[in-house]
Amino acid sequence: MGDLEMNNHLECLVRSVRDAQRRLGSANGEKRSRILVRLATLLEERESDLLAANQRDLDAAHSSGLEAPLLRRLALTPAKLETLREGVSQLAEQPDPLGRVRRRTELDDGLMLTQVESPLGVLLIIFESRPDAVIQIGSLALRTGNGVLLKGGSEALHSNRALVQCLREAVASEGLPSDAVVGIEGRQAVAELLEFDQLIDLVIPRGSGQLVQRIQSSTRIPVLGHAEGICHLYLDASADPELALRLAVDGKCGYPAACNATETLLVHRHFLPHLPQLGQALEEQGVSLRADEEANSYLPNSQPVSAEDYATEWGDLTLSIRTVGEIGQAIDHTHKYGSAHTDAIVTTDELAAERFLREVDSASVFVNASTRFADGYRYGLGAEVGISTGRIHARGPVGADGLLTTRWLLRGSGQTAADYGPGKRTFKHRALAV
Amino acid sequence: MGDLEMNNHLECLVRSVRDAQRRLGSANGEKRSRILVRLATLLEERESDLLAANQRDLDAAHSSGLEAPLLRRLALTPAKLETLREGVSQLAEQPDPLGRVRRRTELDDGLMLTQVESPLGVLLIIFESRPDAVIQIGSLALRTGNGVLLKGGSEALHSNRALVQCLREAVASEGLPSDAVVGIEGRQAVAELLEFDQLIDLVIPRGSGQLVQRIQSSTRIPVLGHAEGICHLYLDASADPELALRLAVDGKCGYPAACNATETLLVHRHFLPHLPQLGQALEEQGVSLRADEEANSYLPNSQPVSAEDYATEWGDLTLSIRTVGEIGQAIDHTHKYGSAHTDAIVTTDELAAERFLREVDSASVFVNASTRFADGYRYGLGAEVGISTGRIHARGPVGADGLLTTRWLLRGSGQTAADYGPGKRTFKHRALAV
Repeated sequence: MGDLEMNNHLECLVRSVRDAQRRLGSANGEKRSRILVRLATLLEERESDLLAANQRDLDAAHSSGLEAPLLRRLALTPAKLETLREGVSQLAEQPDPLGRVRRRTELDDGLMLTQVESPLGVLLIIFESRPDAVIQIGSLALRTGNGVLLKGGSEALHSNRALVQCLREAVASEGLPSDAVVGIEGRQAVAELLEFDQLIDLVIPRGSGQLVQRIQSSTRIPVLGHAEGICHLYLDASADPELALRLAVDGKCGYPAACNATETLLVHRHFLPHLPQLGQALEEQGVSLRADEEANSYLPNSQPVSAEDYATEWGDLTLSIRTVGEIGQAIDHTHKYGSAHTDAIVTTDELAAERFLREVDSASVFVNASTRFADGYRYGLGAEVGISTGRIHARGPVGADGLLTTRWLLRGSGQTAADYGPGKRTFKHRALAV
Repeated sequence: MGDLEMNNHLECLVRSVRDAQRRLGSANGEKRSRILVRLATLLEERESDLLAANQRDLDAAHSSGLEAPLLRRLALTPAKLETLREGVSQLAEQPDPLGRVRRRTELDDGLMLTQVESPLGVLLIIFESRPDAVIQIGSLALRTGNGVLLKGGSEALHSNRALVQCLREAVASEGLPSDAVVGIEGRQAVAELLEFDQLIDLVIPRGSGQLVQRIQSSTRIPVLGHAEGICHLYLDASADPELALRLAVDGKCGYPAACNATETLLVHRHFLPHLPQLGQALEEQGVSLRADEEANSYLPNSQPVSAEDYATEWGDLTLSIRTVGEIGQAIDHTHKYGSAHTDAIVTTDELAAERFLREVDSASVFVNASTRFADGYRYGLGAEVGISTGRIHARGPVGADGLLTTRWLLRGSGQTAADYGPGKRTFKHRALAV
């Protein structure tokens, strides 16, 4: 197939998703709920087919020598499928977000303005080995009336196909066009899709920072994601040593590859006497420490740290440590070297806590809590679309809200713009409760 | 100055704006109010200097033969300055948006999550001849704690410099760094700034659709604006003919160059008998009509219309007209040829009105009101940042809200992520009133 043909074919496909999305998004909320109920049923009815499709992927992955952690992520199990079904059923019961009123203003007698929540449009989701993502993100897209192009990893090809088929059948079961959900295969197709900035509204890459960065640098479509998570834990002069130790160990060791893991410890000079004990606890967990000269004198096994280290997302059991003379220096370090993902202070000083919360310009800013709490599930957002370190549209852990935009609806009775102005009618602009 | 030097100089400047913005954004709201009060005073004290600077620009513009409408936009007058001062004073009195709580969730005992509004960051505003924009957008940026790079047209050079100086002095009067506001001169500087997608958070071009398109196609920074306004007025079968006439004339003739002007009339076949009178009223206002064959038979002076015409933003007294057999066809036409800016229906049929409001996927959707109402001032948003036809972040007329993002603040008492999970603590996720 030639490039031109490929492009035309894909453009046609995306336009079909847009058309289907418009019907899905303007259908009533109960219809979208019933689609989700049907999806949960299909996932149950098709369980053996889904597991068989997954087994084909697992067999191929074994032969090609995929690493154990990736194999675990690739595997569908009856338990994982049950969790997925539960998630979908919960989503089906949630109130419909579409049409929810965000603002209501009486502009004048008989001229009522309402800002309502609406589907974002067409989403392109690009994810790596976990086939669960098909259902998690697909069901969220359906709940919010969005069309969705799903591109999974080639290692999960058969699993993804079988799961996408469930989504499409669920949509069709309510008489809506199944093209609201479409599976995409092949890298070349993704490269082409990323050119369609007039047809696709948002790209959500779910995977490594490298994946996010590669996509961000190759498209004009807005990308929701986080390229980096360089999170700081600042131990204030007044920090409770036991609490500081607990939060440092949890932040670094709980899941070092997570984007919300702690990468750098900023330590107030007055806290240094507590550092040996903390360093020992970390080293017992296998952590390698890299510290500045002053902190190093309290840490027998630590290596020297560099400016480059401060700008590094370790993603493993390495931790940078820096001594600071006061809280302002800790905040400045966070702004200079961090990625504005999540930064936390440990302190018993109320003023220091409030200053940190006010001044640190990151998506998530914590007092006396592990950086690992930055997560859609822990925040109670229900499903998590992703974590955004961008400042536009949605920031930090993003739930269904990130898949919505708004429309302004105006109900009038024949008013013209020329009716208003000096010597004519004036607007009331009365804000009403929503 | 070499390119590299230029780049370094500008990068240094933008970093200085970011640093200043952080101090402005974390200062308390009263300080930002006092800055605005001081700005209003400065605009009064400097009135003769400002008018003199503007006179230099006007003299140069006269010599270079600038057209009359542009000269009018360029001119500052005592009345315009008074309007600007009033706007700034009103903004000074408004409640501070920063720190406003959008969501509050008790995750667990002693673990409280709050989502608060925060400054977006560093804005790059690019505007054409009107120097008023410096104060309008500059004061909004200060109210919302943003840093701002202001690039005006070269024809307003002296006016802009004098106005930017007032903004900078107002900031400095409260002991904050004046670099929160910086004036930019020269096209080359803009081209370089548009490369800084890691340092600038949002570009707002205020001017022609061409300006917006040129900028959108030359940067990775998010752009808030509307490239096109192809607005439709659909006259339903049940439309009141007198009301339809009034809205068509207002929509097309009130200010034809505006982005919210009506460009296409969609006419239900049953309404055609009323078209001659409507066509005559439009022609009396100097409108040239282009209609499809069926509508043309009701319009003696109308020309044939093409598919290309339907996709054209006339911006003048030309109007496309198309006959449709039912409302669904009108909605499809709007989606196919429109720009999702503003579309309106004229109808007395409640069901048709609600269907139009539900199905038309545009930033603004109206019933029995002129498309010209799509405007931040008319919507009661106070100052208008711009009108966005993008679907991300902000849509339609955008007020101060479009200059804000959020941060998630978590206040804990030593909780770790490892405290939660199967057989351990469970989250409460209790939504609290804001």
